[in-house]
Amino acid sequence: MLRINARRLLDDLEALGEIGRTPQGGVSRPAMSPADVEGRAWFRARVEAAGLEFHRDGAANLSAVLPAGDPTAPTLLTGSHLDTVPNGGRYDGALGVLAALEILRTLRQACLSLPVHLEAISFTDEEGELQDQLGSRALAGTLTARDLDRPRGGGDKLAAGMRRLGVTHQGMLAARRDPKDLLAFVELHVEQGPRLEAAGIDIGVVTAIVGIRSYWLRFLGRAAHAGTTPMDARADAVWGAAAFVQSARDLVIARFSPGVVNCGQIQVRPGAFNIVPAEAHLALELRHGSEAHLDDMEDALFNLAEGLAQVQGLTLERELVARCIAAPLDEGVMGAIERAASRLGLSHRRLMSFAGHDTQAMSAITPSAMLLVPSMGGTSHNPREFTRQEDIVNGANTLLHTLLGLMAEIK
Amino acid sequence: MLRINARRLLDDLEALGEIGRTPQGGVSRPAMSPADVEGRAWFRARVEAAGLEFHRDGAANLSAVLPAGDPTAPTLLTGSHLDTVPNGGRYDGALGVLAALEILRTLRQACLSLPVHLEAISFTDEEGELQDQLGSRALAGTLTARDLDRPRGGGDKLAAGMRRLGVTHQGMLAARRDPKDLLAFVELHVEQGPRLEAAGIDIGVVTAIVGIRSYWLRFLGRAAHAGTTPMDARADAVWGAAAFVQSARDLVIARFSPGVVNCGQIQVRPGAFNIVPAEAHLALELRHGSEAHLDDMEDALFNLAEGLAQVQGLTLERELVARCIAAPLDEGVMGAIERAASRLGLSHRRLMSFAGHDTQAMSAITPSAMLLVPSMGGTSHNPREFTRQEDIVNGANTLLHTLLGLMAEIK
Repeated sequence: MLRINARRLLDDLEALGEIGRTPQGGVSRPAMSPADVEGRAWFRARVEAAGLEFHRDGAANLSAVLPAGDPTAPTLLTGSHLDTVPNGGRYDGALGVLAALEILRTLRQACLSLPVHLEAISFTDEEGELQDQLGSRALAGTLTARDLDRPRGGGDKLAAGMRRLGVTHQGMLAARRDPKDLLAFVELHVEQGPRLEAAGIDIGVVTAIVGIRSYWLRFLGRAAHAGTTPMDARADAVWGAAAFVQSARDLVIARFSPGVVNCGQIQVRPGAFNIVPAEAHLALELRHGSEAHLDDMEDALFNLAEGLAQVQGLTLERELVARCIAAPLDEGVMGAIERAASRLGLSHRRLMSFAGHDTQAMSAITPSAMLLVPSMGGTSHNPREFTRQEDIVNGANTLLHTLLGLMAEIK
Repeated sequence: MLRINARRLLDDLEALGEIGRTPQGGVSRPAMSPADVEGRAWFRARVEAAGLEFHRDGAANLSAVLPAGDPTAPTLLTGSHLDTVPNGGRYDGALGVLAALEILRTLRQACLSLPVHLEAISFTDEEGELQDQLGSRALAGTLTARDLDRPRGGGDKLAAGMRRLGVTHQGMLAARRDPKDLLAFVELHVEQGPRLEAAGIDIGVVTAIVGIRSYWLRFLGRAAHAGTTPMDARADAVWGAAAFVQSARDLVIARFSPGVVNCGQIQVRPGAFNIVPAEAHLALELRHGSEAHLDDMEDALFNLAEGLAQVQGLTLERELVARCIAAPLDEGVMGAIERAASRLGLSHRRLMSFAGHDTQAMSAITPSAMLLVPSMGGTSHNPREFTRQEDIVNGANTLLHTLLGLMAEIK
């Protein structure tokens, strides 16, 4: 049975991990940074050294291509991203790109004749230095001119980053690919959570990528002297926020599992030891794999917040900050992953991905799915992120046979 | 029966309220600000216009003095402070100074021969722009060189403020008065709380000024991905802080009333929508009129915090930020206030002051007490602070007869 060259893949991961390496042993290679530019040059050199075609689109997505005999054949895409969060790890993104590259090398050496163009892609700025999943959204055609006009990091940062990569607004919007030219997309990634390791499962098959909704919830009370105002005469905004944090957690665990909630920031005003808080602004984030469940969670949590605010004599304001639609993945591609894992004698389990991924964008235009390998302790976006060599190799071989399976179907 | 000149007092309050007036109708006259310097010049002019002696000590405390016939007589002190918090009100501090000045004018015009030197004092920086109760602590001798070396607002700010007032470290420490030269201290102030107004009481007689203890309580957990980390695998610092806020409130209401607790600030780190909080720093302030009760409150709240942290898998750090010792006031002076109010046909009630005051510092060196008049809605440190004219006049007349009563006792 065909297998990738494990040594070559592990050496590539090692070499790439040196680019943007931090003193703590992590990797800082945010999109458009000098380290990112260096990583891109290294990738291009590896692609060309392997005798593969190198492509770069208007969004600076980089690809290696192993072409089909028939130029009119569709393209089967696989890949992930080379950028990292600041002081992140060596596996998040990198694994999916380098495994894809290794598979193309393996297939090229095997001299197989392909019924599709096989393309190993590295998407620009998955981590959202400028915009979450910038490159994959550009390719999917879901990146709008409006997104580029109001980038998360500010217009100046976007302009500077785009200059560094030599891309333009126009080029970015023109990176859109025609769905008719695509067969499917598959992404290999580390889990970034502890479930596979804890359960001793080799391969996770992602059924959906969570939808994410972020809000500011603002509890508004009345500033008062923290000594002279009797406890029963206070409208303390922090009391409302604190009650909500606890009740929201309990409600989500009880009624919306495996959905999750996070209150990642609290801003208190005026914010002095001796003043009863007038305002508490809570950063609230909900995640679930189903939009219907997200709707229900949202309703339940806002009702809860309203009730708690009322009890404390507070008023409530809410503001939607960001919304990312849940993406159910393709049953056909999921099945191909499961069959590939089974052929290799690997255990597998279906699960939801609670992190955003390029697959989310790609699923809008082509049948897409995603496979995960265990991540030790679930540690992610952290220098201590670690995936064992055997899991890396298992993931790459499963991806190889998933792609072979998808190609076999259309032969 | 002798009474102060109500019109003259109200006109003075009106005129002083124009100095540092904000567009919102409040008053910004923080210690050492240009408005404070202007207010001090205005006060000196009013003192001299009344034919009273004007004094200024090494801490820039300003006094009007109506001398006794006998130069070796002790001094009976009354007063408060002219400085305000930024964007504060017209009554806090100003009432006590201007009522004291008005009483000296009234007694001078009555041509009484006094058995004591009667001194109307305005203390420097009661509100703590540099140090809480800076002037009264300097006079009481409880301000140390160390306080001046580590001022709350920073050394540069202290140096600049002291230059503006023309005072030196040495002069400040030399402002200490000999307790043997003092008979007593009485301060008139607005309540800054709603209790007198709510109960329809004219005069509050303060039994003690609360002790205040401030801490940073730091709940320490583990930063984690807010999507991929299951709810039951989180060590969310905000969960601990939120549980504490609620339980601390309930505990203090149930077991330590009339003591109060405030959580006036929460700082969350790293503080992002999509990261489970690693740290939540809570600004905790406790107030009670009894040090013994404060000890008990502190123990109970820290035990509570430790227990809640443990349950959530967090660790707890605490840091004492400031401590102000509770000051029980003088029974003799309290009695004099009550007799004066009764003589004037005014209702009175004993209560604790939950705000800090210059009386706190003065009580360390001379028999001291304090009377309060109603403050509408209890609004304080706010442009909307308001005390009715009749309450102002009632307070000033009660202070007048309190001082006359104290003088009568030593004749």
